[in-house]
Amino acid sequence: MTLDLNCDLGESFGAWRMGDDLGVLPYVTSANVACGFHAGDPATMRATVAAAVTHGVAIGAHPSLPDLQGFGRREMRIGAEEAYAIVVYQVGALAAFARAAGTHLVHVKPHGALYNMAARDRTLADAIAAAVRDVDARLVLVGLAASELTSAGVRAGLRVAHEAFADRRYRADGSLAARGTPGAVIDDVDDAVAQALAIATGRPVATVDGTLLTVVADTLCVHGDRADAATFARALREGIVAAGVSVAPLGVDARA
Amino acid sequence: MTLDLNCDLGESFGAWRMGDDLGVLPYVTSANVACGFHAGDPATMRATVAAAVTHGVAIGAHPSLPDLQGFGRREMRIGAEEAYAIVVYQVGALAAFARAAGTHLVHVKPHGALYNMAARDRTLADAIAAAVRDVDARLVLVGLAASELTSAGVRAGLRVAHEAFADRRYRADGSLAARGTPGAVIDDVDDAVAQALAIATGRPVATVDGTLLTVVADTLCVHGDRADAATFARALREGIVAAGVSVAPLGVDARA
Amino acid sequence: MTLDLNCDLGESFGAWRMGDDLGVLPYVTSANVACGFHAGDPATMRATVAAAVTHGVAIGAHPSLPDLQGFGRREMRIGAEEAYAIVVYQVGALAAFARAAGTHLVHVKPHGALYNMAARDRTLADAIAAAVRDVDARLVLVGLAASELTSAGVRAGLRVAHEAFADRRYRADGSLAARGTPGAVIDDVDDAVAQALAIATGRPVATVDGTLLTVVADTLCVHGDRADAATFARALREGIVAAGVSVAPLGVDARA
Amino acid sequence: MTLDLNCDLGESFGAWRMGDDLGVLPYVTSANVACGFHAGDPATMRATVAAAVTHGVAIGAHPSLPDLQGFGRREMRIGAEEAYAIVVYQVGALAAFARAAGTHLVHVKPHGALYNMAARDRTLADAIAAAVRDVDARLVLVGLAASELTSAGVRAGLRVAHEAFADRRYRADGSLAARGTPGAVIDDVDDAVAQALAIATGRPVATVDGTLLTVVADTLCVHGDRADAATFARALREGIVAAGVSVAPLGVDARA
Repeated sequence: MTLDLNCDLGESFGAWRMGDDLGVLPYVTSANVACGFHAGDPATMRATVAAAVTHGVAIGAHPSLPDLQGFGRREMRIGAEEAYAIVVYQVGALAAFARAAGTHLVHVKPHGALYNMAARDRTLADAIAAAVRDVDARLVLVGLAASELTSAGVRAGLRVAHEAFADRRYRADGSLAARGTPGAVIDDVDDAVAQALAIATGRPVATVDGTLLTVVADTLCVHGDRADAATFARALREGIVAAGVSVAPLGVDARA
Repeated sequence: MTLDLNCDLGESFGAWRMGDDLGVLPYVTSANVACGFHAGDPATMRATVAAAVTHGVAIGAHPSLPDLQGFGRREMRIGAEEAYAIVVYQVGALAAFARAAGTHLVHVKPHGALYNMAARDRTLADAIAAAVRDVDARLVLVGLAASELTSAGVRAGLRVAHEAFADRRYRADGSLAARGTPGAVIDDVDDAVAQALAIATGRPVATVDGTLLTVVADTLCVHGDRADAATFARALREGIVAAGVSVAPLGVDARA
Repeated sequence: MTLDLNCDLGESFGAWRMGDDLGVLPYVTSANVACGFHAGDPATMRATVAAAVTHGVAIGAHPSLPDLQGFGRREMRIGAEEAYAIVVYQVGALAAFARAAGTHLVHVKPHGALYNMAARDRTLADAIAAAVRDVDARLVLVGLAASELTSAGVRAGLRVAHEAFADRRYRADGSLAARGTPGAVIDDVDDAVAQALAIATGRPVATVDGTLLTVVADTLCVHGDRADAATFARALREGIVAAGVSVAPLGVDARA
Repeated sequence: MTLDLNCDLGESFGAWRMGDDLGVLPYVTSANVACGFHAGDPATMRATVAAAVTHGVAIGAHPSLPDLQGFGRREMRIGAEEAYAIVVYQVGALAAFARAAGTHLVHVKPHGALYNMAARDRTLADAIAAAVRDVDARLVLVGLAASELTSAGVRAGLRVAHEAFADRRYRADGSLAARGTPGAVIDDVDDAVAQALAIATGRPVATVDGTLLTVVADTLCVHGDRADAATFARALREGIVAAGVSVAPLGVDARA
């Protein structure tokens, strides 16, 4: 068994810092790099790509709704044409930094509200998948496990990666319990590692609804905005490896 | 003899329209497409690339300083690192739309204040040239004829295109007379075509300083923001062709 | 009977022009001036206020969601705190231009998606009303007639103005038929004037649902983005005045 | 003798935090609040005003060039009309938050590149001073001591405050040594307090040029972006008070 560990990185903007990129990079296998619409100005994107290359971490685009002030977390009613265009734009911008650094993008994972909307809205999901395919059909599309977005990726002929969360609890239907509801976030690192191991080894996890749910996933999200992000990332990786699951970026063999 | 006719296109933004793109496209050979920093949101970029493809016009990026409110015309003190990063970002974004439309970028021409600053500032010019080369070394860098930018392109190993202006008058030193100074803009279409023909056939043009100047150029700028842009573009093309000079995009043979 | 005629003005941005402000100003009594979030940079705001003063037109703020690219027309999920803050900010910014021009704001009318959301969402409507009251309790709050926004204004102790539309058709429940649905927009000027006169004189109008509806209104919206905006505004005003209804800005006596 | 202690506050933006506002507020007498152009979204402005009110700190506007990505530190070539308009806009926006909080603005201090440009460019300085006067002639204009900006304020009929720096060294001509040059920044708190005391008591300070300079000032800048901002602010205040100089906001008696 192999699992990817992905983390949102490069979410500083101009003079403002966010996250502990250098603390987390040693432990993850994929970096979702902000592309300027919710965070990540061009100079930050360049520096983040360079850091990922140094750590041998695979690089992916993390496109967002255009909402710097809301950090891409506010849902916005956009049409399919607009969604297609903003994804092409952002993936292309980051791809250029990858190319300038002598590497290439491996994956695309929508950010925040765009990720959540695409998990449940088929039209939006298809627009995003088409954008990714039209820019580079070898890219892996990362979405919430068993969501409209991963389905759209399959329809578009893309390789997809189903994403699961170690530190968030699920509802019985496989969606994430909303932040702010009791029990939605798993603060304790040991508990989060335990959920990660369950997912990694095919065992069910307890949902907030009191049921058990088996989450099948290709990649685990490592939240980089936790105060203990580096500690958490390290514990997650070491726990998973100790359980006999290997960690590797998505699609490592894709361009062989 | 062959000359390229380039025009700034795709300078609408959101609900705002600018220029007569469809009126000008039949007469030019290269489109400099705005990349979102001074004009041109993602949906506009996609539509502009599609229109250029339909008319068989070569597509290039038109990167700018980040200044939507000032339309990229206000000089801003940015460092070489920042200039490098904003050019990589914008060229990459547009390249993705070209790829999604089944084509590729041919050239890069900085916009407005970035163009003017790069014409005279060697450090900035080198940063821009490095950015273009690092994204795609086959791109043609377009700059003011015999300026720091074209020199930087040569140093970076890029093919460069020297740009001249039909409807702007020069100073004795080869720089453009500043807009707003008497005689700087040639409003009359016939006079502009006459200057274009002089440049196209190697004859000198009259400067605002009363001297004669020979401008050697690979490409002529067709201003799309003139009220009579389509008429002007047509007269320019017909006049040049009638003089026995053929028109063709830059680097047509570059990817043969 | 007295009716106000309001129009959205100052919706240019930077180098981009929109609307026919100078054509419409002679015929309206109130100007809703864009405040920078969907349109209207500071220099445009200043010029728009000056033009309104010249024409003796009352000035109001036209605050929007922060969405320049979408012209404030895309719904965005924002909380009440955020809505409060963006309204205070925009009203304050425009009020300063009014003060600098020797006058003061008379009203506030939310723009686009914010207007529509506030018409049906009580929490959002209360936040907007509180913001207006906290900046200046003498301001008149303009909202869709008989909507959550006008109710919120009353709860906040503000004078409110119920707005009706001459060139849009209503549904049986008093809401506007969505743009894009058949019959939603009244293109013909005579038909629009007829609807305006019905509203002005208390007669019912035909809804898209085939019913009759009496719309009680204090102010009529004159769309400035019609191609025939000035002609439409003139016909509207002349028709109304000919019918014996006088036109005057909102709250003319408010600061007496 | 009385001295004001001012600090730039409210420089967070959206999800990004900056500075230690709550740590510094107990020790300063005036807050320069960011107005959205270099930092400080509307919700942050509201919270900052509330915090200043709680601490009894006088509130002023801190308007900037429109450059979020560059934090307002990049010089940009803008005309006097544009400078006037962006100052009116930002001062008005903050004034509305003050009014909503039951207080009023006391002063205006331009930020970053706008401050530096206004210190040496008379046309720009006059435009800024006119903007402040036109919004509210009772506001105090804060500028670099003995600069073009303070002169412009006097010409505009405004009360002005000459600003000095405790932790920056001067050149012989009274300008600040540029950051990045040796000795420009005084890192040691004791040394900074010593310079502050010299200024507060009318004794000369050592310049980077090896000369002595007497700096006459009404207000001292307390940099809030130092890692030790709160400690520094406290030491500065206690040192000054211990030397027999009282601290108070600018223009405390202005609206008596």
